[in-house]
Amino acid sequence: MTTRIEPRSGIAFTLDAGDILTVYDPEGGQVSDLVAYDRDDPREVISNGRTFDLEETIHLTAGNRLWSNRSNPMLAITEDTAGLHDFLLTPCSVDTFKHFYPDKPVHRGCFGNLAAALEPYGIEADSIPTAFNIFMNVPVGQNGKIEVLPPTTKPGDYIRFEALKPLIIGVTACSAYASNGGSFKPIDFQIDSGR
Amino acid sequence: MTTRIEPRSGIAFTLDAGDILTVYDPEGGQVSDLVAYDRDDPREVISNGRTFDLEETIHLTAGNRLWSNRSNPMLAITEDTAGLHDFLLTPCSVDTFKHFYPDKPVHRGCFGNLAAALEPYGIEADSIPTAFNIFMNVPVGQNGKIEVLPPTTKPGDYIRFEALKPLIIGVTACSAYASNGGSFKPIDFQIDSGR
Repeated sequence: MTTRIEPRSGIAFTLDAGDILTVYDPEGGQVSDLVAYDRDDPREVISNGRTFDLEETIHLTAGNRLWSNRSNPMLAITEDTAGLHDFLLTPCSVDTFKHFYPDKPVHRGCFGNLAAALEPYGIEADSIPTAFNIFMNVPVGQNGKIEVLPPTTKPGDYIRFEALKPLIIGVTACSAYASNGGSFKPIDFQIDSGR
Repeated sequence: MTTRIEPRSGIAFTLDAGDILTVYDPEGGQVSDLVAYDRDDPREVISNGRTFDLEETIHLTAGNRLWSNRSNPMLAITEDTAGLHDFLLTPCSVDTFKHFYPDKPVHRGCFGNLAAALEPYGIEADSIPTAFNIFMNVPVGQNGKIEVLPPTTKPGDYIRFEALKPLIIGVTACSAYASNGGSFKPIDFQIDSGR
């Protein structure tokens, strides 16, 4: 049973250790920003820097783990039909809409959607880290220059995670024009108990 | 007048808006991890993701700014004789020493040095973000693989920042073997009032 995240929205939920979370791109070409916090102490949060350090790559896929600011593994990527994700960029927000799309209506973006979804768990907006941006296509040029290109995902592509400890998860269907090729699409996810 | 940061140690201090901070590599081949917080509300902190987003590059040098998690510019890089720094990796720590150097004595690393230096400012270890790693040489391969190579700095190379708001700064002389080519060296810095 999958749950749908409507275009330009977000949701938060908890996982037990061992639970399996699968995030689908039902139509292809969409991005989903994911953040994860320790459920018992949300000051522990996924960290792109610790993950890059310990996985020795910025390209995370099946076989890699996402690590926390306390150097604990939070999520293992167990399957990945997409193979291309980003862990460099922060969620789109009111400020990034004003900066990158000055002629478009301002949207609270994935940042605002995550902040609203995480508030009931006592997590402040300031505690939203660089997200793991599922399906996001951000090539790094030889000179370090980065671009945001449309995702290469096809309908039904997915990434599967195993929770390595009890977690609070925030996840979105991305709101920005560039990251999804100019259209806004839903994201589906499914949780399977590890027990 | 420069101040010396002894090998494998760290320090914290405040800057006023407009102050100029210069960080020198006096011997060449050394790394210095820098973090910055808003002085009035340290929940605002430098963010590699916001910086990559808004500067559209992972290679930061003169002309670039370091941005906060609230999308405000914190520091402008005004001069840079080194030209090569890293904003991908987190400070070395007890955990990274155990992971990368299992046969060497464990050291609290830049992370522990920053945590101790920032504690009097009410900043917890959990609030230490991915640091701006001055002079650190971390090439990203085409497949996303990252390496930590010795810095290319020569004695006297420096980077100069202008504080764009009142800040708390933490800065180290790096403690890890790989990042400085296996030796431990000091770092010098100087603060010039912007007034």
